Amino acid sequence: RRGEMAKSTQLIDNEVFRAYATYTAIVLLKMMLMSLITAYFRITRKAFVNPEDTASFGKGESAKKYLRTDPDVERVRRGHLNDLENIVPFVGIGLLYALSGPELSTALLHFRIFTGARILHTLAYLIPLPQPGRGLSWAVGYSVTFSMAYKVLKTAWLL
Amino acid sequence: RRGEMAKSTQLIDNEVFRAYATYTAIVLLKMMLMSLITAYFRITRKAFVNPEDTASFGKGESAKKYLRTDPDVERVRRGHLNDLENIVPFVGIGLLYALSGPELSTALLHFRIFTGARILHTLAYLIPLPQPGRGLSWAVGYSVTFSMAYKVLKTAWLL
Amino acid sequence: RRGEMAKSTQLIDNEVFRAYATYTAIVLLKMMLMSLITAYFRITRKAFVNPEDTASFGKGESAKKYLRTDPDVERVRRGHLNDLENIVPFVGIGLLYALSGPELSTALLHFRIFTGARILHTLAYLIPLPQPGRGLSWAVGYSVTFSMAYKVLKTAWLL
Repeated sequence: RRGEMAKSTQLIDNEVFRAYATYTAIVLLKMMLMSLITAYFRITRKAFVNPEDTASFGKGESAKKYLRTDPDVERVRRGHLNDLENIVPFVGIGLLYALSGPELSTALLHFRIFTGARILHTLAYLIPLPQPGRGLSWAVGYSVTFSMAYKVLKTAWLL
Repeated sequence: RRGEMAKSTQLIDNEVFRAYATYTAIVLLKMMLMSLITAYFRITRKAFVNPEDTASFGKGESAKKYLRTDPDVERVRRGHLNDLENIVPFVGIGLLYALSGPELSTALLHFRIFTGARILHTLAYLIPLPQPGRGLSWAVGYSVTFSMAYKVLKTAWLL
Repeated sequence: RRGEMAKSTQLIDNEVFRAYATYTAIVLLKMMLMSLITAYFRITRKAFVNPEDTASFGKGESAKKYLRTDPDVERVRRGHLNDLENIVPFVGIGLLYALSGPELSTALLHFRIFTGARILHTLAYLIPLPQPGRGLSWAVGYSVTFSMAYKVLKTAWLL
C-alpha cells in the first residue's frame, strides 16, 4: 500500500502535468487579481454595494451616497465574470487533456496560447482596447479549450 | 522514474475516469455554448453593455441607444450563471467521486442523470418551459452532485 | 493493464489527497447551499426574476408585481458569486497543491483555515457582521490559496 501511495502523488513528475499545473496556477492567480482590482476601484471611486461597507464614511445620508454603481467597477466585474466563464472550462477540460497523453509540445502550445489570450482579454477589457481586440482574444482562448475537449472526447469517450 | 511517469498518465485508462472525462467535457462544452448564445442575442437584439462594442454602429447618440439590457440576453446570462453555480460543484465533486472507486454502472448513472438534467435545465430556461420544469431539472442535477459528495465524504473523510 | 487501472484509482488512499477531497467537498457543498438560501429568500420575500416563476400567483398585473429585486435576495446572490470567485481557485489550485507532495500537517492547516474563513465569510455576509469582518475572512481565504499556488509553482514550474 505504501508503494502505491507514494506513486499516486507522483503525477506532478509528469511533464505535461507540470505544464498544466504551472499554467493553471497562473490563469487562476490572474483571475484572483480581478478581486483586488475590483476592491481598488470600489475604494478609489467610492462605489460600494453593501451598506456595512460604507460605515467608515459616517452614518445615514452621508454614507448612503456611496452605495452606487461605478462604470469602472462594473467593467472589472464583467471581466471577472468572463474569466469565470472561460477559465473554469479551461481548468476542468485542461486537467482531462493533460491526463489524455498529449505530446508535451502540443500541450504547451495549448496552455501558452490560452494563457496569453486571457491576459490579453483582461488588458483589452480594462484599458479598454477597441474591438475586435477583446472579441478576438476571447475567441482564441475559447478555441483552445474546444481543441482540448476534442482530444479528451476522442481519447476517453465512454458514454 | 520513467515507469512512474508513464503510469501516472494512465488515469484515463480507468473506465470510471473515462466516463467522468466524457460527461465533464460534455457539460463544460454545454456551458461554453451559453457564451455563443449570449453573443447571438446581443448582436440580433442590438443590446450591448460596453461602449467599445457599439462603435461599429456609429459615434455618439446613434450608438449609445444600443447600450441597453434586453430580456432575452438577460435570460441567457442567468442560465449561464446557473450553469457556473451547478456545473462547478459537479466537476469538482465528480472528480473526487470518480477517484473514490465507485461501480462503473453507479457512476454512469450519476453522470448521465446530471448531464441530462442540465441539458433540460438549459432548454427549460431558454424556451422557456412553464414551471416546475426548470425547478425540477435543477433539483435533479443538485441531488446527483449531493449524492456524489456523500460517497466522497464517506470514502475519503479526513478532517 | 488491470494492475495500472487498479492503482490509478488509489489516489484516494493518499492522506493529503483524502484531506483535499474532504475539504473540497465541504466548501463546494457550502457553496451549493447558497442556491437553497437564494430560493428561500425569493419565495419568502416574493421576489422573482423570471415571469414563468410567478405564474402560480395568478396572471397579468397581479403576478407582475413579484418580478422585482429584494435586498436580501441580492445579498445572498453576491455571497454566492463571491464563493464562485474564491472557491473555484481553491479547488483548482488545491488539487495541484495536494499532488505536489506537501506535508500532511501543512496541507491540513491550509485546507482548515480556508474552509473556516469561507464559512465565516458567508456568516459575515448574511447576518451581516460589521466590517472588517467580511473583508478579513475574504483576505484569509485568498491568502491561503495564494500560499498553495506558490508551492505549486515552486514544485511544478514548467513554462
